[in-house]
Amino acid sequence: MTYLSDIEIANQVTMKPIKEVAKSLNLAEEDYNLYGKYKAKLDALELAKMADQDDGKLILVTAITPTPAGEGKTTTSVGLADGLTKIGKKAMLALREPSLGPVFGVKGGAAGGGYAQVVPMEDINLHFTGDFHAIGAANNLLAALLDNHIHHGNHLQIDSRRITWKRVVDMNDRQLRHIVNGLQGKVNGVPREDGYDITVASEIMAILCLANNIVELKEKLRKIIVAYNFSGEPVTAGDLKAEGALTALLKEAINPNLVQTLEHTPALIHGGPFANIAHGCNSVLATKMSLKYADYTVTEAGFGADLGAEKFIDIKCRLAEIRPDAVVLVATIRALKMHGGVPKTELGEENVTAVIDGLPNLEKHLMNIQEVYGLPVVVAINKFPTDTQAELTAIEEACQERGVDVVLSEVWEKGGAGGVALAEKVVELAERENNFNFVYDLEDSIEEKLTKIVQKVYGGKGLELSKVARREMAELERLGFGNYPICMAKTQYSFSDDPTLIGAPVDFTVAIKNMKVSAGAGFIVALTGAIMTMPGLPKSPASERIDVDENGTISGLF
Amino acid sequence: MTYLSDIEIANQVTMKPIKEVAKSLNLAEEDYNLYGKYKAKLDALELAKMADQDDGKLILVTAITPTPAGEGKTTTSVGLADGLTKIGKKAMLALREPSLGPVFGVKGGAAGGGYAQVVPMEDINLHFTGDFHAIGAANNLLAALLDNHIHHGNHLQIDSRRITWKRVVDMNDRQLRHIVNGLQGKVNGVPREDGYDITVASEIMAILCLANNIVELKEKLRKIIVAYNFSGEPVTAGDLKAEGALTALLKEAINPNLVQTLEHTPALIHGGPFANIAHGCNSVLATKMSLKYADYTVTEAGFGADLGAEKFIDIKCRLAEIRPDAVVLVATIRALKMHGGVPKTELGEENVTAVIDGLPNLEKHLMNIQEVYGLPVVVAINKFPTDTQAELTAIEEACQERGVDVVLSEVWEKGGAGGVALAEKVVELAERENNFNFVYDLEDSIEEKLTKIVQKVYGGKGLELSKVARREMAELERLGFGNYPICMAKTQYSFSDDPTLIGAPVDFTVAIKNMKVSAGAGFIVALTGAIMTMPGLPKSPASERIDVDENGTISGLF
Repeated sequence: MTYLSDIEIANQVTMKPIKEVAKSLNLAEEDYNLYGKYKAKLDALELAKMADQDDGKLILVTAITPTPAGEGKTTTSVGLADGLTKIGKKAMLALREPSLGPVFGVKGGAAGGGYAQVVPMEDINLHFTGDFHAIGAANNLLAALLDNHIHHGNHLQIDSRRITWKRVVDMNDRQLRHIVNGLQGKVNGVPREDGYDITVASEIMAILCLANNIVELKEKLRKIIVAYNFSGEPVTAGDLKAEGALTALLKEAINPNLVQTLEHTPALIHGGPFANIAHGCNSVLATKMSLKYADYTVTEAGFGADLGAEKFIDIKCRLAEIRPDAVVLVATIRALKMHGGVPKTELGEENVTAVIDGLPNLEKHLMNIQEVYGLPVVVAINKFPTDTQAELTAIEEACQERGVDVVLSEVWEKGGAGGVALAEKVVELAERENNFNFVYDLEDSIEEKLTKIVQKVYGGKGLELSKVARREMAELERLGFGNYPICMAKTQYSFSDDPTLIGAPVDFTVAIKNMKVSAGAGFIVALTGAIMTMPGLPKSPASERIDVDENGTISGLF
Repeated sequence: MTYLSDIEIANQVTMKPIKEVAKSLNLAEEDYNLYGKYKAKLDALELAKMADQDDGKLILVTAITPTPAGEGKTTTSVGLADGLTKIGKKAMLALREPSLGPVFGVKGGAAGGGYAQVVPMEDINLHFTGDFHAIGAANNLLAALLDNHIHHGNHLQIDSRRITWKRVVDMNDRQLRHIVNGLQGKVNGVPREDGYDITVASEIMAILCLANNIVELKEKLRKIIVAYNFSGEPVTAGDLKAEGALTALLKEAINPNLVQTLEHTPALIHGGPFANIAHGCNSVLATKMSLKYADYTVTEAGFGADLGAEKFIDIKCRLAEIRPDAVVLVATIRALKMHGGVPKTELGEENVTAVIDGLPNLEKHLMNIQEVYGLPVVVAINKFPTDTQAELTAIEEACQERGVDVVLSEVWEKGGAGGVALAEKVVELAERENNFNFVYDLEDSIEEKLTKIVQKVYGGKGLELSKVARREMAELERLGFGNYPICMAKTQYSFSDDPTLIGAPVDFTVAIKNMKVSAGAGFIVALTGAIMTMPGLPKSPASERIDVDENGTISGLF
C-alpha cells in the first residue's frame, strides 16, 4: 500500500472560504480581518465583549513520554475536533503555530498529518499571517535599543557581560549561536559577546501567548529583564522606554488566526513558544476565544504530560483562569515498545511483552493526570499499520485497572471518521465532575515548587541544586520573583533529567544547574542542562528539495 | 497657524474598503487577496493575461539634487495622482514600500505627507503585508545555507574570506555592522568575519523589484553570487540549491500591494530597494500592472534626477521594457537657496539672488531630462509657507528659457486640489512625442558606460578608477558581466562624488573606488566610497515616543 504525502492529501481537498468558516461561528465580517481567502485574524478586543457568555468545554491533548518522532498529538487533536464535528458537536481547535526555520531543515510541516490536517498547510508553515516575523522584529528592536543605549553613553550602567537579551531569527542557523558584535571602532557599537536564538525561543513569544489582552501585553513587555547593571540590579525593557514601540509591532500579532481542518472544523492557530525554556502552549487569547465560540475546544501542550501538561496547568491555566474538562493521553504502541526496551529497528514487529514492559510509562502519566491534576482521562492509541490486536489488548487491560478507557484513533488514515469513538468518549468525560488542581501553590518557595514537581509529577526522590542554581534562586527571591510559577527546562525523553532513563524511572534526583527569570512572561525557568535554542541545518537540508512552478505552486515542502 | 500631524490628518479621513478601490479598477474579488480591510495583494500572474491590453501613460516624479530633508517627491507624487483623479483621469500610483527600521530612529513615515498621503499609514510603515519580512527570511535562509555548507565539509571550496552575502534585519542596528560568528567550537559553525545590512539593502530586494514574473524571480535568485571559492570563481545560490526555497518564501511577496490615497486614488506600494547600491524604484510588477489598470501611472525614483531617474531609465525601464511619457522635476525654493550657498538657518528668509545662484542645479537636471533622457518635463515647486512670489518668478523666468513650465504644487496643504495645475500640465506633456533614450548601451564596456554617466548626466570631466576598481572591472568582464547595466553608488547631495560640491559643479572627476556585481539583480555596482548599508539609532530614538492604547490605537508613530 502506498500513502499520499500530507501535501498531496491537502491538495485533494477543496477548502471553504474562511468567510464561511467564520460565519459558522456567527462572526460578522467586521469581527475579523481576512489574510487572503483562507486565513483570517480575529479581533482580540472582542473577547472582553463576550465576558458574560458561557465557556465551552476544554479538552487537553497530551502524550506519554515521546520518542524523537513524536506520538502524533497534533494529528490526534485535529482528528478529535473533526470527530466531534462529525457527531454533531460545535468543536474548534486551538493549536500552536509552527516555526519557519525547521521547515528548511529535516522536519516536515507541523499542521497535523494524513487526513487530519489544518490547512492551508503551506501558508501555515511559511509566513502564515506574519506573527512570528512581528515577534522577531519586536525582539530585535529591543536588542537594538539596548546596544544603542550602551553606544550613546550607557547611563543605565548596563554590564555588557550580563546582557540576557539575545537577538533572534526564524531560521535554523547554528553560525549565529555565538557571536561577537559591535566590532570595528567607535561608530559601530561597543564590542561584546552575543548570540542568536530561533524566534520561537524569544521571551516575547511566551509573553504574546500569556497576555489576556493588549494592556497586559504591554505591561509584560515592560517587565522584560534585558540585562543587569554593574550593581547587579535588573535593567528592563521599560527602562529603555521600549514597551510602547514593541506593542505597536505586536498589535496585529496578538489577534488569533482562524483557519480550518480538511473537514472544515474551525481552528485557531496562534503562538508557539518553546516547550522547555517556555511553556509550550498556543496563546491564551486563542484558547479563551475558542471557548466562547465553540462547545468543545481541543488544544494541546508540548512534549509529554509530565512537561507540557504540567506547564499548561501550572502556568497557562493559572494565569488565564481557565481549566480543562478532560484530557486525552496520546500513545503509540511503537513508543510503548521503546519504553519496554526494544531498539528502534525492531519496533515494527509484534512484541506484547515489550508493550507490557513499556506500560509503566503510560500508567505513571495516567496517575499524574488523574491524581495530581485531578482530571478525567482517556488513552488514544494513534494507530500504525504494524500495530496488532494482542498489543492493543495488553494496553486496554492495564488501563482498565485504573478505570481508564483506551480508544483507537485512526484519524491519520480516516480523518474525523477515525476520531468518532474518541470524540464520543471525550464528550462523556467532559461531563464528569473533576478535582482539578495545580501541582504547587504560587506561595510555595521556589525550592518547594521544584520539589513538588519532581516528586509528584516526575516520581523522583527530590532535587539536586547546584551551587550556582542556589545562588540564582536566592537572587530571584530577593528581586521579588519568588511567587512566580516554575517552567522546567528538562529533556522530554524521560520523566527524569536523563534522557536514557525511559519507562517510569524511580529513585532519581533532578539536578537543577541554573535558574533564570522570564520576568515579562512571568515564570522562573529551571534548567537541568544546556538547552539548544538555535537549531542547525542537516548536511542535505530540506530546502534543496523545495520548488515553486510558474503558477506559484510549491512542491517538496513536505 | 498650527498644522496637524500626518497621522492626525490621516485619522480624520474615512478610508474606503479596499474592495471598493479594487472594484474601481474593474478587479473581481478572485483577482486579489485581502490583508485586512484596507490592504490587498494583486496577483502577479494576472499581468501575463493582460499582455494585449494597452498601457497607460507613465509619469516619473524625480527631483533636483536634494537637501537632507528631501524635496517631497512622494508627497508630490501622491498629490499629482489625486490631482489627475480630480480632473477626471483614471490615475494610479506605483510607489516604494518604506523600511521598518528607520521608523524607530529619527524619521517619520514614508507615505507622503499632509493632505497628500497614502493610507493606512501605520500599516504601511510597520509590517504592511509582510513583504520585507519575507525578503529578510529569504536572505537569511541563503546565509544559513551557505554557512551550513561550509560547516558540513565545504565541498564547494568556499573561501570564507570572500563571502559576499551578508545577513539582514529590518532594524537600525549598528551593533551588527561588523561581527564575528560561528564561535565556540566544532558544533557551532566555522568562525569568520560577517556583518548585517538593513533588509532593504539585500540584493533580494532589488531582485524582487526587477523580476517580471515568478520564473524570472527564481532565475535571478539562482544567479546570486554569495561568495568566491579558493580558485576565485563565483559560488551562487544555485550552487547551494537554494533558489526553489527562496522563491517559496517570496511567493506572496512578489504580488503588488494595493492601498489608497486620502482621496481614494488607488496606489500600488511594492518593494523598496536602496537607491545607491541598488536602483531605488518600486517593483517592475507594480508599475506594469498599474500601466494596465490606469490611464496615468505616477511613479517616483530615488534621490535626484542624476541618480534615481538615471537608474530608473537605464536599469528598470531597460529591463522591464517600459518607458516614461513625462517627467515631473520636484524642487523647493529652500533647496535652490541652499544650492545658491545660503546656510540652513537662513533658508526661511526671502533671497532672490540666492535662488538665482542655485538655479544652475535645476537647469542641469532639466537639460539632462530633456537632452539626455529625451523626455518632456515640468518643474513642480513643492510649496513652503516661507516661499515668496519674487523667488518663484525668478525660477519661472529661468525655466522659460528652456521651454519648461513651472507649476506650484500645494498638495501638502490642499491634497489633490493643490495638484490640479500640475496634473493638467502632465496630461499635456504626456501627449507629446519624445526622444526617450538610454544614457549608454549595454554593449559599451563598463568603463565606457561609467564615463557616459559621468560626462552626460553628472557634467564631470571623466572617471578616476582606483587600481582595485580596475582589477575588479577586468574580473567582472572576465566573468561575463560586462554587458550588465551600471548602478552608481555615490552621494545624492551633489552631481559629483563630493557632497560639498552643491549647485552644478563642472570640471570634476568621479573616483570609482570599488566595483561589484549584483549578479542576480543584474547590475554592476560602482562605488565612489563607503556606503552605509546599516543605519544606527539616535540617542533618543523615536521608539521611545511610540505607544498603543487599550483599543490598539497607535500614537507617536509620526
